[in-house]
Amino acid sequence: MKATLVIKNIGTLITLQGENKARTGKSLEDIGLVENGIIAVQEDKIIYVGQGELPENISVDRETKIIDAKGKTVTPGLIDSHTHLVHGGSRENELAMKLKGVSYLDILAAGGGIHSTMESTQNANFDELYSKAKKSLDTMLSYGVTTVEAKSGYGIEDFDTELKQMEVAKKLDEEHPVNIISTFMGAHAIPKKYEEDPDEFVDIIINEMLPVVANKNLAQFCDVFCEEGVFTVDQSRRILLAARELGMEAKLHADEIKPLGGAELAAEIDCISAEHLIAASDVGIKSMAEKGVIANLLPGTSFNLQTGKFARARDMITEGVPVALSTDYNPGSCPTENLQLIMSFASLIMKLTPEEVITGVTINGAAALGLEDSIGSLEVGKKADIAIFDAPNLEYIIYHFGINHTDIVIKDGKIVYQG
Amino acid sequence: MKATLVIKNIGTLITLQGENKARTGKSLEDIGLVENGIIAVQEDKIIYVGQGELPENISVDRETKIIDAKGKTVTPGLIDSHTHLVHGGSRENELAMKLKGVSYLDILAAGGGIHSTMESTQNANFDELYSKAKKSLDTMLSYGVTTVEAKSGYGIEDFDTELKQMEVAKKLDEEHPVNIISTFMGAHAIPKKYEEDPDEFVDIIINEMLPVVANKNLAQFCDVFCEEGVFTVDQSRRILLAARELGMEAKLHADEIKPLGGAELAAEIDCISAEHLIAASDVGIKSMAEKGVIANLLPGTSFNLQTGKFARARDMITEGVPVALSTDYNPGSCPTENLQLIMSFASLIMKLTPEEVITGVTINGAAALGLEDSIGSLEVGKKADIAIFDAPNLEYIIYHFGINHTDIVIKDGKIVYQG
Ligand SMILES: [Zn+2]
Ligand SMILES: [Zn+2]
Repeated sequence: MKATLVIKNIGTLITLQGENKARTGKSLEDIGLVENGIIAVQEDKIIYVGQGELPENISVDRETKIIDAKGKTVTPGLIDSHTHLVHGGSRENELAMKLKGVSYLDILAAGGGIHSTMESTQNANFDELYSKAKKSLDTMLSYGVTTVEAKSGYGIEDFDTELKQMEVAKKLDEEHPVNIISTFMGAHAIPKKYEEDPDEFVDIIINEMLPVVANKNLAQFCDVFCEEGVFTVDQSRRILLAARELGMEAKLHADEIKPLGGAELAAEIDCISAEHLIAASDVGIKSMAEKGVIANLLPGTSFNLQTGKFARARDMITEGVPVALSTDYNPGSCPTENLQLIMSFASLIMKLTPEEVITGVTINGAAALGLEDSIGSLEVGKKADIAIFDAPNLEYIIYHFGINHTDIVIKDGKIVYQG
Repeated sequence: MKATLVIKNIGTLITLQGENKARTGKSLEDIGLVENGIIAVQEDKIIYVGQGELPENISVDRETKIIDAKGKTVTPGLIDSHTHLVHGGSRENELAMKLKGVSYLDILAAGGGIHSTMESTQNANFDELYSKAKKSLDTMLSYGVTTVEAKSGYGIEDFDTELKQMEVAKKLDEEHPVNIISTFMGAHAIPKKYEEDPDEFVDIIINEMLPVVANKNLAQFCDVFCEEGVFTVDQSRRILLAARELGMEAKLHADEIKPLGGAELAAEIDCISAEHLIAASDVGIKSMAEKGVIANLLPGTSFNLQTGKFARARDMITEGVPVALSTDYNPGSCPTENLQLIMSFASLIMKLTPEEVITGVTINGAAALGLEDSIGSLEVGKKADIAIFDAPNLEYIIYHFGINHTDIVIKDGKIVYQG
């Protein structure tokens, strides 16, 4: 077999090899640490992962791109499995309110927050949304991210805006090196005109929106914001089960602020992942563990909102819940594209080990997107999505926080970013 | 007058114009906000700052470099006025201890912490220290920083290592675009062999080290770590007064952990700045305000150590203490070079306003280094040290946290970084 790209002399190679499924990442073995590693790629696939030199059955020639990764750390391309990538506007004008201690729900009630982003997203045309999201995607790529989930949810009752968001995501997936997985989240807030009868809006989502999204093949997942003042557990269940009938797997923004039973619901209906989970109950966590629901944790949001409340990541892992870590990139509660900083937050604040952290942004992120068979670890046959960091080891990336450690990013076997 | 460089159409120009001295930065006026601003530079000096077009007495020709800053934000080059830039080694191996909740003083007592960096710094030769510090300096520059303070203090009783650190800083100042201001901090820890009689080590610093540092002209400032288990208030006073006799101005690592009276001492002996101040008393803060001592606050360190305790920046500003903000970049308690992230920390965690934050990393940082007459604001006659950010306004840089907003950095009138 001829290699088209070889990465050799890898100081620290972290393969995440093992079963293609979400894990707790508790042990060093789980992350597949190899010293003096070597990887060979043919076109867009990995054909060899090992130590030292290439075996004889793999050949290189003058066209083979050779990367010397001496002193560097190599991991699977990072996966940001929860973002609100496509949106209009920016909300730095809310900084003054936040500095005065106004809560997110109060900003929301005052017509700011998500309502402001809804207006900006509605007013932006396709090209404006595309170029703004593309800029963020370039930034994410520069931090080593090769796959991103993107939720709709800034149109809400304005379904054309929902469709516009997902169509922008689809076009970016086709044209940008980073892969985008699309999630329909029309159930992101209760529109003002349905506040008296939210069930009517739930019916509209189920009967009018979901069939169109499915028909146009615009989203692989459906997500609902289950929270006090937003969607109840019953409404969330109805929407997600209807989405599944149409072929969309379920995700749930669960127990972010109040313990409403979102984690329990996610387990009950076999969501692929539940998001936020800051207020999740012990029972909810245990039932997620039983069902293998992935906890998608977003410490950047807790940090940015300065609530002082972070998801109980340690308890979840102890109970056997696999933890994914994401930015939650959005213009309100977490305006950052830097997944490396989220890794540092998960370690410094949530006390996750480096092994648990890298598991959360690779194989567990892949599993949260249903892609664990093709990405999330460096193994023969998987896609050649690879991040090379200018760092001697994994700990360094997390410990030396706040800067960008990326040296080279490889997507589908091609170099798409150089630091 | 002929301009060699012009920055025109500036979306948001923040000049920090006003008296060349440290300020509380409480009002928008203090930061000199100009819309549609324009700046002209001749060689290394600013010759015009205004709105709209250049006046007739300033000419441009084909050799004039013209930068269009439409939609961008322009500020004085940022100033990182407290770092431990030059050192050997990295301490990511302490991450595991930190994750288990071991405190800094306990890591120190166990022979880790500063002792580990001392060993690495002693073992590194001049070129190794130089290239490691240069890499960090490149990173700092990429975040818009044009002036950095660098402390010695990893040699301590090994005076050759202290000298080596300061000589590296001096050579970097000469060879790197970023200016480096050097601080002698031999009093950074009590060496093990003087633990029984720390005053003997204080005598050595005063009688043997300070005269050599002064004679070789290796430091503009002297700093002491005044803390329980390190140097007492009396020892700190002795060292700093001796340094002043030799022409070095005084700084003090004060009240970082315990309220020992460091803030009071800084006021008593007219330190130019006092650093950390997390545990500073009300009396200490008031006396700093009376004497105009600058509070140099380092929220990245509190964040990284996850103590939950931050300096009372709001109280300080209310009392009239000018606040500077710095990274404290060092391999142990704050391994980050990203001053933009520190700006976000100051806002999100300490609740400083954007005006107070930008004041802290420009004119107040300059004043903390005694350079307020030549840098820290954009005014005619000052050095052309300028940061251009790909951000529509100041709030955006702070709000959209964790990424690098730098577009172009100009040092001494020349473009030295492009994002
Ligand atoms: Zn979200
Ligand atoms: Zn320090």
